[in-house]
Amino acid sequence: MSLLVVGSVALDSVETPFGARENVLGGSATYFAAAASLLTKVSVVGVVGEDFPLGELDFLQKRGVSLDGLEKVPGRTFRWKGKYGFDLNAAQTLDTQLNVFEHFQPKLGPEARKAERIFLGNIDPELQMRVLEQAENPRLVCADTMNFWISGKRAALLKLLPRVDVLMVNDGEVRQLAGEANVIKAARAVQRMGAKAVVVKRGEYGAILFADGCHFMAPGYLLEDVFDPTGAGDCFAGGFIGYLAEHGFSLEGDHISRGMLSRAVIYGSVMGSFCCERFGVERFRTLTREEIDARFEEFRKFTSF
Amino acid sequence: MSLLVVGSVALDSVETPFGARENVLGGSATYFAAAASLLTKVSVVGVVGEDFPLGELDFLQKRGVSLDGLEKVPGRTFRWKGKYGFDLNAAQTLDTQLNVFEHFQPKLGPEARKAERIFLGNIDPELQMRVLEQAENPRLVCADTMNFWISGKRAALLKLLPRVDVLMVNDGEVRQLAGEANVIKAARAVQRMGAKAVVVKRGEYGAILFADGCHFMAPGYLLEDVFDPTGAGDCFAGGFIGYLAEHGFSLEGDHISRGMLSRAVIYGSVMGSFCCERFGVERFRTLTREEIDARFEEFRKFTSF
Repeated sequence: MSLLVVGSVALDSVETPFGARENVLGGSATYFAAAASLLTKVSVVGVVGEDFPLGELDFLQKRGVSLDGLEKVPGRTFRWKGKYGFDLNAAQTLDTQLNVFEHFQPKLGPEARKAERIFLGNIDPELQMRVLEQAENPRLVCADTMNFWISGKRAALLKLLPRVDVLMVNDGEVRQLAGEANVIKAARAVQRMGAKAVVVKRGEYGAILFADGCHFMAPGYLLEDVFDPTGAGDCFAGGFIGYLAEHGFSLEGDHISRGMLSRAVIYGSVMGSFCCERFGVERFRTLTREEIDARFEEFRKFTSF
Repeated sequence: MSLLVVGSVALDSVETPFGARENVLGGSATYFAAAASLLTKVSVVGVVGEDFPLGELDFLQKRGVSLDGLEKVPGRTFRWKGKYGFDLNAAQTLDTQLNVFEHFQPKLGPEARKAERIFLGNIDPELQMRVLEQAENPRLVCADTMNFWISGKRAALLKLLPRVDVLMVNDGEVRQLAGEANVIKAARAVQRMGAKAVVVKRGEYGAILFADGCHFMAPGYLLEDVFDPTGAGDCFAGGFIGYLAEHGFSLEGDHISRGMLSRAVIYGSVMGSFCCERFGVERFRTLTREEIDARFEEFRKFTSF
């Protein structure tokens, strides 16, 4: 099994200036798998409640996503309700119901333990660590986190960082984690805390990868219509790690291949941009590899000089 | 004479989180000339008052900048006072004293009339038009503007646009001018209003060039210390047009060379980044062509994949 994601599988209710949807498929693991499965084989570990419409995940299973690690337990599924104004870079959370996610304990089956690459979605850093404790010998570990854990579970997060190859956070989060307003200084500080590389996601303004002593900058893809940015960061992670998995990339020792990581950032940006074109994971139901590669080439065209 | 700039020559008082300066050399024409003169021969048309310390411009004259078109008239020099918080993307204007600038009427001498390339700094669009009426046959006209003119002198600005080859504005300005929140749609609308190309400046997030039916995106250079972003947009323009002038670029008919314009955007970004490293135009007193070209190559390194 090549790529394992551990994160939330949720039902989201989202309102943007362009419309609203109730109880649609969401969650970090779902978005990640929707994007990454277009590039490589993905396995999901997560939990849903009795109310979860499993048929909604058929499109992922058809694409080879393994849901063996998705437990169905008594109770209701994790629900998130949010709203975006015209500044689509920042969501306003209206309601969060953890439900079955409150007592989630990730359990890796025999296959999942052998995963070569792991994405730790944005969950409690103690749970992220428990995933790594069960993993036998991952060659690449990427992790997301958020302000809630940076302030509330700082010690656990600092313990996790030395085991993370690529930390993927937004600009506010890297600043908060490092206690430093300048984004270069903040990213370097996080590298000193243990993460081998840091990807700073900047919403519509793109992403920056800090690895070794240098960095790579990708602008955000210009979209004429942004319907719903929910999940774009997880789809970015799916494109990033999916591309690296497809090419058998690993971080052996301390060496980092800048070229491949840079292209992975572009695949991440491509997936994040597609995510915003429709509500929820809708765009990934029909997205093709040809469209993905064509947008990658578009990035080359509008960034080369 | 190759490159003419018409704009303000001012005395600025600026406060940032990193310090404060009183009555330092400022103004759009000054910043533009400081940057562009490192790449090509520049001529300035503007006005100062009796209180203006002309010796401050010696470093420009030594670099071949012609100040023959800089009038000294009775009264006080244009003064601007502003303040930046930790978000260095937006200045708060504390005081503006137009002084001698209030009755400024740009007059082009026989040499200036023959200018092949013109930068119309951010002044009243009626005055910008009067400059073009005096110019004999410019091969490239670039113009800046701002919210004040977009709302207050809209008719004059709309009359000017068909005579502008490259309009250089920030993202808020292009949205306001087009009455459209989406930046691609807004830039295309401004092209339909007559500007052949549009450069959208996005502060620390870089710049986008819209020309023909395509676009080019440059990320902003990552600075560890941003001392004072005043004038960065004018230095961007200086780098952009300076590079085009150096290479004899013109817009013949409707053809636009995307490659050269893209490299000009990078030279613009390079100059804008150097501008922010010190207060006022300080950085340009010592900046060398070697440092400029080295930073251009750095852009290539952190954007190519």
